[in-house]
Amino acid sequence: MKSKRLGRQTVALSNPPAVIASANIGGKMEGQGPLKAWFDEWDEDSFFGQKTWEKAESFMQKKALQRALDRAGLSPEQIDYVFAGDLLNQCIGTSFGLREFGIPFYGLYGACSTMGESLALAALAIDGGFAERCAAMTSSHFCTAERQYRMPVPYGSQRTPTAQWTATAAGCAILSDAADDAPRVTYVTCGKIVDKGITDASNMGAAMAPAAYDTLRAFFRETGTAPEDYDRVITGDLGELGHAIVRDFFARDGIDLGENFVDCGLLLYDRTGQDMHAGGSGCGCAASVFNGYILDQLRKGVWKRIVFAPTGALLSPTSSFQGESVPGICHAVRVDA
Amino acid sequence: MKSKRLGRQTVALSNPPAVIASANIGGKMEGQGPLKAWFDEWDEDSFFGQKTWEKAESFMQKKALQRALDRAGLSPEQIDYVFAGDLLNQCIGTSFGLREFGIPFYGLYGACSTMGESLALAALAIDGGFAERCAAMTSSHFCTAERQYRMPVPYGSQRTPTAQWTATAAGCAILSDAADDAPRVTYVTCGKIVDKGITDASNMGAAMAPAAYDTLRAFFRETGTAPEDYDRVITGDLGELGHAIVRDFFARDGIDLGENFVDCGLLLYDRTGQDMHAGGSGCGCAASVFNGYILDQLRKGVWKRIVFAPTGALLSPTSSFQGESVPGICHAVRVDA
Repeated sequence: MKSKRLGRQTVALSNPPAVIASANIGGKMEGQGPLKAWFDEWDEDSFFGQKTWEKAESFMQKKALQRALDRAGLSPEQIDYVFAGDLLNQCIGTSFGLREFGIPFYGLYGACSTMGESLALAALAIDGGFAERCAAMTSSHFCTAERQYRMPVPYGSQRTPTAQWTATAAGCAILSDAADDAPRVTYVTCGKIVDKGITDASNMGAAMAPAAYDTLRAFFRETGTAPEDYDRVITGDLGELGHAIVRDFFARDGIDLGENFVDCGLLLYDRTGQDMHAGGSGCGCAASVFNGYILDQLRKGVWKRIVFAPTGALLSPTSSFQGESVPGICHAVRVDA
Repeated sequence: MKSKRLGRQTVALSNPPAVIASANIGGKMEGQGPLKAWFDEWDEDSFFGQKTWEKAESFMQKKALQRALDRAGLSPEQIDYVFAGDLLNQCIGTSFGLREFGIPFYGLYGACSTMGESLALAALAIDGGFAERCAAMTSSHFCTAERQYRMPVPYGSQRTPTAQWTATAAGCAILSDAADDAPRVTYVTCGKIVDKGITDASNMGAAMAPAAYDTLRAFFRETGTAPEDYDRVITGDLGELGHAIVRDFFARDGIDLGENFVDCGLLLYDRTGQDMHAGGSGCGCAASVFNGYILDQLRKGVWKRIVFAPTGALLSPTSSFQGESVPGICHAVRVDA
């Protein structure tokens, strides 16, 4: 049976791939947060025993993939493709993290939407009959991201109130066409680049909110569903401000997103005990929350169906220096228990 | 009918998507080279009328996509997905080049293999029934690449003999499931990350050669074909040294790649009249040669079938500064007239 295209952006998978295993890893802050119990591993050492933070980020990807493979009882040879990327220039977190596995690799750049993009493409590859098993993964590291996008960490520069904290974390999901009793990716909605002219690179939540609104609206329209049909509608790292903006956009359309509309960036850290300003961000934020807490709630049947819609800010320091605004993108997947 | 997986890396498309239109654009050097007649447009001005080189690169992507759409007689609304990426940090050539089109977007990072990766994923999306029409595209710019990877151009640093010249160019292909009389993508082979320990970032041909060998070997093995079955086996930008290394690797296996084994980086510039050292490189090299010269030979029936296998070097200046070697990747597609 062919998958059904429900509209320009959404595909209803006819043989929804199962997420047969997942793994995540975090840093010190992530291990001290409210989702502590849902991390497979976390390390006080931001270097994870490596010589540089970049190597530490690659190490996190390697660990997450290896642990997910171990849980699935699979060797790297049994994975047909890995879809992955990260925030670093030329995605070196991924290329150096995955090079030893020898798995056919499609490299992605979706900024912090990468966990959504990788899940979407992995699910399509399996549903299309092109693969039996795929891995989807991504990572971020506070110190590599600060050095690259903003200031070196030792400089100690002050962060603005709208700034978010890049998570030091990685997450990996293994998808399979086998009929396991596991959460399944049932719908995939591909996002468009949306740019509403926000130029403040310290306010990424606001820059990404229009993309989240655009993709979620397309998802609900094309699937003929409403926010109340889901146990959770989960954005990736909009943070406090961006999340409120999306809620406001929907409210203007007469749609109340309600209490089930949550954000990985607001779940990952203690909003009062940990001073993360507007919340968490980074590819690893949505990736570690999805591959730990979210999948666990689905596996336990606490939630029956969710929408997972991480957003990415498609800027670079160079584009900001050149006065450009911040384009955003959001890729959504529906996952059923 | 389901597509056939011929092995771990290769898919035989059951309804091979047609490349119904293509377009390319180049800079001064590209317009003075031997493939001059196969450029839709080239500009003496490296800024293409823009304020910065980065904006010029985005402008090239915009122009290439618009021209390909015009040729296909399509509006952006008629394209289901665009698969694209580039070499710049956070792929800003792509995100700023495509943001006005409003086409659902899957962002890729495959370095100089991006034209192969984007064609592969666009073809799979159509063959899987997830899309009717997709765009596949990428770009590079000599000045943005030099500034980012090496030295600012005005510094005038001397290039090593093994260095390659990053093409200032972009190319775009429109793929469709419609039964036009056009070249078709018939097989897709996904590459693995291959790293043989080359640490000289000025010798990317040598760093990428093992990946080209690995993917081409998988392609021939899994399709049960040999180099002589093709009118051309075309790598992306291995340049003089990398190309010779791949030829040598195959020779050790007793396989003569013959005269039909060519490289876009060796075709794009005059090897004696233009001093490009080891040849052309950059995502735009393979993209502009594929979407001009190569497709034209297929459309005219000069060639019946080709393998197009661009390679990418998955390094960043940071990974090189940290003493890392240069991992490579190569994605291959077979295109039949």
